[in-house]
Amino acid sequence: MTRTAAALLIGNEILTGKIQETNLAVLAKELFRLGVEMRRVVICQDKIDTIATDLRELSQNHDYVVTSGGVGPTHDDVTIKAVAQAFDTEVVRSEELECRIRELVGDRLNDGHLRMADVPKGADMVEAGEFDWPTIRMRNVYVLPGLPGIFRAKIPMLRDNIGATRPFLSKAVFTTLRETDIAELLSAIEDEHPEVDVGSYPVLNEKYRVRVTFDGKDGAAIDLAVADLLAGIPETEILRR
Amino acid sequence: MTRTAAALLIGNEILTGKIQETNLAVLAKELFRLGVEMRRVVICQDKIDTIATDLRELSQNHDYVVTSGGVGPTHDDVTIKAVAQAFDTEVVRSEELECRIRELVGDRLNDGHLRMADVPKGADMVEAGEFDWPTIRMRNVYVLPGLPGIFRAKIPMLRDNIGATRPFLSKAVFTTLRETDIAELLSAIEDEHPEVDVGSYPVLNEKYRVRVTFDGKDGAAIDLAVADLLAGIPETEILRR
Repeated sequence: MTRTAAALLIGNEILTGKIQETNLAVLAKELFRLGVEMRRVVICQDKIDTIATDLRELSQNHDYVVTSGGVGPTHDDVTIKAVAQAFDTEVVRSEELECRIRELVGDRLNDGHLRMADVPKGADMVEAGEFDWPTIRMRNVYVLPGLPGIFRAKIPMLRDNIGATRPFLSKAVFTTLRETDIAELLSAIEDEHPEVDVGSYPVLNEKYRVRVTFDGKDGAAIDLAVADLLAGIPETEILRR
Repeated sequence: MTRTAAALLIGNEILTGKIQETNLAVLAKELFRLGVEMRRVVICQDKIDTIATDLRELSQNHDYVVTSGGVGPTHDDVTIKAVAQAFDTEVVRSEELECRIRELVGDRLNDGHLRMADVPKGADMVEAGEFDWPTIRMRNVYVLPGLPGIFRAKIPMLRDNIGATRPFLSKAVFTTLRETDIAELLSAIEDEHPEVDVGSYPVLNEKYRVRVTFDGKDGAAIDLAVADLLAGIPETEILRR
């Protein structure tokens, strides 16, 4: 069985267009490589009830959930509380994290720092080599920070922790034909190779008109599907295969 | 009452990391300017049942829903069918669209072209000046194509069609202080100005450490909240205000 994942991206800054979200693509590529099927992403506001409701649903229906954002010392950082609520538990201060914060911060210590030691009761701390700071995992939910540089740096931890199974593979064919001209052929190929997910992506202003992608875990099946496409369209209409 | 919106971004290419999604930020910025609160975004696979379930839920709980992707002639373009299913109706071929397609395409006409004339029964065709092609709207759902260039070009249609109310305004203060140092102050400001949404966004490798944003529809309230922050931190710790 292919493992499944979902992501919950938390933050008003995404929904108001203040930032161009980039964590999702980083996560999606990694899960693809790990052979985990990312089925769903929700982007929600910084509201405890909303986050908790979404998390509960996503956690129940997927093997893994990764959250991004809302972990920090300020009033709009409510992810930890929401994770606790989603799992009907409370927020507790981790003695271990508090110790580490006191060591790091020394005399500058304030309530903001101490809030960073708050965790949902029952959460695990996943240690990762590169970091001096553990990742909070509650059941199947990995709580990651939204800051792109740190989010990206947490990916090796995720990789080590959930582990790879048979990876997804992908091949692409670029054609100068229009989607309307290959629609029927693609449909036949998809029917013929049910284990291959055939995607068709038109572009503007490129040397090709459509990128056809073939995804799946069975490399031989992918090759057969690609061959079917190549056999079905004139060679002059194929680019960079 | 502030109007609300949601977006449904449809496509395996986003969930497998093949593309960096960019339509959301374009839409989010526009809705912000129009004074519409974007509350939620879902990114889902190209599956009719999934899309239909999500659409029904999003449509019931928001004033507007914008979909992106899955409208084309190929097997993985299932958005129209899903919209019909979401509203318990069927897909019908629009005579008007079929006429227009026949005019455009002439002798090249094939089934792929004709599929572009399929619409959910009961849908409106929203005409827009810049385009020779209408946008399908089903109740409060606007069905937009995923191709970024075309998605972006549809924004003026959306603007004209849903219209502007009092826009959201936003101001930002950049500070060299750490989030932990201003967390308490921000919390007090948020409490003092409930009509202002205060956001705190740390960054790495910039001349400032945190961008504090103040969003709302009441410009005077925003200015007061900004003034409270400026009064609460040393001037030397403020950058580019």
